[in-house]
Amino acid sequence: MTVTHHTTGHVTPSTDLADVFELAQQLRVDSVRASTAAGSGHPTSSMSAADVMAVLLARHLTFDWRRPDHPANDHLILSKGHASPLLYAMFKAAGVISDDELVTTYRRAGSRLQGHPTPILPWVDVATGSLGQGLPYGVGVALAGRVLELLPYRVWVLCGDSEMSEGSIWEALDKASYYGLTNLTAIVDVNRLGQRGPTELGWDIDAYASRITAFGCHALMIDGHDLREIDAALDAVSHADRPTVILARTLKGRGFSEVEDADGWHGKALPQDMADRAVAELGGVRQLTVAGPAPTARQEPAPAQAPASVDLPRYEVGEKVATRLAFGKALAALGARPEVVALDAEVGNSTHAEEFGKVHPERYFQTFIAEQAMIAAAVGLSVRGYRPFASTFAAFLTRAHDFVRMAAISQATLALSGSHCGVEIGEDGPSQMGLEDLAMMRSVQGSTVLYPSDATSATALTAAMADLPGISYLRTTRGKYPVLYPADEPFPVGGCKILRSSGTEDHVTLVGAGVTVHECLAAADDLSQRGIRARVIDLYSVKPVDDETLRRAVAETGALVVVEDHHPEGGLGEAVLSALAPHGGTGRFAHLAVRELPASGSSAELLEAAGISARHIAWAARRVAG
Amino acid sequence: MTVTHHTTGHVTPSTDLADVFELAQQLRVDSVRASTAAGSGHPTSSMSAADVMAVLLARHLTFDWRRPDHPANDHLILSKGHASPLLYAMFKAAGVISDDELVTTYRRAGSRLQGHPTPILPWVDVATGSLGQGLPYGVGVALAGRVLELLPYRVWVLCGDSEMSEGSIWEALDKASYYGLTNLTAIVDVNRLGQRGPTELGWDIDAYASRITAFGCHALMIDGHDLREIDAALDAVSHADRPTVILARTLKGRGFSEVEDADGWHGKALPQDMADRAVAELGGVRQLTVAGPAPTARQEPAPAQAPASVDLPRYEVGEKVATRLAFGKALAALGARPEVVALDAEVGNSTHAEEFGKVHPERYFQTFIAEQAMIAAAVGLSVRGYRPFASTFAAFLTRAHDFVRMAAISQATLALSGSHCGVEIGEDGPSQMGLEDLAMMRSVQGSTVLYPSDATSATALTAAMADLPGISYLRTTRGKYPVLYPADEPFPVGGCKILRSSGTEDHVTLVGAGVTVHECLAAADDLSQRGIRARVIDLYSVKPVDDETLRRAVAETGALVVVEDHHPEGGLGEAVLSALAPHGGTGRFAHLAVRELPASGSSAELLEAAGISARHIAWAARRVAG
Repeated sequence: MTVTHHTTGHVTPSTDLADVFELAQQLRVDSVRASTAAGSGHPTSSMSAADVMAVLLARHLTFDWRRPDHPANDHLILSKGHASPLLYAMFKAAGVISDDELVTTYRRAGSRLQGHPTPILPWVDVATGSLGQGLPYGVGVALAGRVLELLPYRVWVLCGDSEMSEGSIWEALDKASYYGLTNLTAIVDVNRLGQRGPTELGWDIDAYASRITAFGCHALMIDGHDLREIDAALDAVSHADRPTVILARTLKGRGFSEVEDADGWHGKALPQDMADRAVAELGGVRQLTVAGPAPTARQEPAPAQAPASVDLPRYEVGEKVATRLAFGKALAALGARPEVVALDAEVGNSTHAEEFGKVHPERYFQTFIAEQAMIAAAVGLSVRGYRPFASTFAAFLTRAHDFVRMAAISQATLALSGSHCGVEIGEDGPSQMGLEDLAMMRSVQGSTVLYPSDATSATALTAAMADLPGISYLRTTRGKYPVLYPADEPFPVGGCKILRSSGTEDHVTLVGAGVTVHECLAAADDLSQRGIRARVIDLYSVKPVDDETLRRAVAETGALVVVEDHHPEGGLGEAVLSALAPHGGTGRFAHLAVRELPASGSSAELLEAAGISARHIAWAARRVAG
Repeated sequence: MTVTHHTTGHVTPSTDLADVFELAQQLRVDSVRASTAAGSGHPTSSMSAADVMAVLLARHLTFDWRRPDHPANDHLILSKGHASPLLYAMFKAAGVISDDELVTTYRRAGSRLQGHPTPILPWVDVATGSLGQGLPYGVGVALAGRVLELLPYRVWVLCGDSEMSEGSIWEALDKASYYGLTNLTAIVDVNRLGQRGPTELGWDIDAYASRITAFGCHALMIDGHDLREIDAALDAVSHADRPTVILARTLKGRGFSEVEDADGWHGKALPQDMADRAVAELGGVRQLTVAGPAPTARQEPAPAQAPASVDLPRYEVGEKVATRLAFGKALAALGARPEVVALDAEVGNSTHAEEFGKVHPERYFQTFIAEQAMIAAAVGLSVRGYRPFASTFAAFLTRAHDFVRMAAISQATLALSGSHCGVEIGEDGPSQMGLEDLAMMRSVQGSTVLYPSDATSATALTAAMADLPGISYLRTTRGKYPVLYPADEPFPVGGCKILRSSGTEDHVTLVGAGVTVHECLAAADDLSQRGIRARVIDLYSVKPVDDETLRRAVAETGALVVVEDHHPEGGLGEAVLSALAPHGGTGRFAHLAVRELPASGSSAELLEAAGISARHIAWAARRVAG
């Protein structure tokens, strides 16, 4: 076989498609080389999409590679994150990583070319590798461009066909059409082979197309190895009146006859001898470089506005206010800062996020009942520098746990709030009670977890979240409770408040957060009548936790009762134990938490039934105070 | 207005539809009465679906109300769980709860008529109230009837229109069509009003229909208040060659002019004066009873087979075997028990669940990459008495967190396994690493959490899960490690193993699980050369935890190092702290866990980088051993 090809050269938008073919072959060759050198990776999943990506890179992806932060740059999201060799091979072709870095560091310790892409690379917006997430993130980025920034960039998402089984993909397409995101294009690499065998729909492109169309998007069906068809499709999306999904029929392992369209080659690097034959069959190693289209309009962000003055609501001590309402009102006030956006999953009148929507409707996004779509859109908005606040019931944030986990890997900045925590919610019963959210949010890498007990602290902590890096979480309570703190009280993250104390005379320390602070105060009153002096700590910052104040309390009182409206695992109690363990522990200790399956009832009845009411706290305090 | 109606009587399948109308009005009246008496609840969401449910109850739901466990009974799942007044009103009409129980106990403490239905009621299969879950559960029940039991029952699921935004609904419809579940019928109550305003699609029934059709199901569009249309649709489904979704156009609050089709009445009980007017407009209180169709074929389950003899694989001490493989092989052996079924989300060759599929393909279900659908189907199968084992990567179980949470409220029996835990997986990087799964699974109410370190314990614990009640979780490791235990070693749940000890002479205790047990053993070797005697505990049972052995270790060694391949929150370390806190704590303590964001690298490099390798353990032990 004689192959005519170029091994060096420069591919530009005006380059003949025959030469773009050389670029595609280079992407394949480099995918094989990098993964074989690493001894692991996904060459075959890279090879199926190489033609589409070559045409995109050479002719359609508008990107200034020297300025990855150019506001008018397009965004490329590799939803099929396992095809990282393909993405990194594109970066090599774009001249931003060297052939040496690609082939000698991929998947190795210390390398930025990880097994699945992360934003440690300046050309990567979001971490991918949990399938079904790249497209929902793309919706958030496209929303920013289309609705907020009014910038001309396009968002391109390369999806695998296997991940089309994830419901989150359909939530994303639904939202993309709802918000009219004509700037969003998904390309599905329909190579018909999943990890362990054929995909559910195989090459039934019509089935995909009818689903996509029904969800309000355009479907374009192409041969994913016909460069002309690819080029026409990528060109067509710029005229589309709705989001477009290009269904590219491809062959897994395309270009190397020993693995092409063969089952059993998912996620396997080729052994060196096969890799050598693959490179030969693909026409050898090339060092082509690409200069695709660059942003034409040098649209920079509007000059930074003068820092907005945020006028936070103030509450009177003793006034009864729900922390969820204080969250909503504080969020509305924070809207004075133009980078603050809010997202709701159809419960904004319960979380009170709608307070923001009332004053800033243009920055208030509704995903309806689709929590995964909400979190993903928030992550996408954060890519463009916005400060998203996303909220729903604490219980329903579990629906988006995988997205929150991945957002941490993306090192995204994201403020979350979960309302209706614990048995305190009462009559609605356990399905609506957040009893696992502290465990879930504490275990997120780098997270901050806050849990206010009154409207003043809820206000201050909501405001603090607007400046916190990483993922922060505010847990709010359904019912109305008295304001405990004057409006100017500071609530530093990592701090706590001592609400009652007789100094070193205290016999026992009661630690609560949220509703249990109020129960602790009532217990302290009761104990006081029995001659027991209780120190009461409002542990509003659950992560990081104020270990110094806790240590002093243990040293001075010798006995600790921690009480939380949450399951005993992973919440307030274990946060306290972890904080104290390196420093000699807790002294005499009791941990009150929701241990049995709750039911319906009034708030007071359920706190009592769960053993976390003032009565139980006082009883436990008497026991440990010895 | 003159209303002709019956206030008492008996509705049967042959009853004229005009009389079924009276039943529908009774359901409305009772929904209003129950929620007004409770002071909370969702009357208007009940009223929209009352006509559909009346026709279903009177003419189509084949159910022996005296025998809720009759194997040929149909299954009715209230996916829109907030419409519980409607469901309970149906139970009253069926004669299984009294009018008094309905009106005086609904949503009250101690009542079985909770705010959202749970299986504490014998006519309820699964807890609902987290939207988008009832239909996926129905898929599991229908799968049992259609594929395993070959019983004639039908599965009816009442969905709300708001919950059609959840991706899990589309995963469910996709799986229903993939498995040809003609015995499954969903009815969508399209009342166009969600919690905080109009739904995304409103009354665009055509949009719903095209989506449903594209996902491989029949869509029937009816006027949800036309009893004849309802009856014809419910009749038609028995002839359908695929799953059917009935799209019922309805009015929220139907029948009471003051709230009918009015926004602002979601989730609000009517004040007493309005309730009185509603009952009057609806024709007053009725006490109609219903005897719908009963099972015709008295198909009982096959007589219990002689207990199957399970021949578990055995491993030689020292042999290198991955615990994930031992899980798969043990699961395959457990397949000798006919009630054991297995589910995979397209990673069965990685979790090794496919070992089961190789020998029991008829009980091996593939949901492709749809973890929510997998867990929900498992819950549905458990409703019919099966023992489902569902597995994927530990990281991707977070995708189904809300389903696992709700399964606990359903008190379902469910065995889960998560593979590829921790940084140990190496090159694939953080997106594939389960680092939050212990926190997630420990915080599930009533759960059991197991984490074997070798093939023998993985085998024994997998077998144990087949007899555990509630939700159990087995965490498995990617790499191959030496077998530590002889094949007949017992591994009681709640126990642990002391792998190294010099009795009361030990200077420090090292606690690990999974891969860190092997690191602890290596550390103990190193320490031994330095004259430090380390006790090594394999804490294979993370919940419940063997607090007695841990207490003895603290008492005898005075120093504890806990090391885990997991984030520090909610995992092994905090399980140990919680176990010891009521008993005087841990003594000198160090907790090694994955605190920073990991990257790619070899397993050994990443254990070292995370600070959980033998070297770090030995260092920490020397520090705390004082």
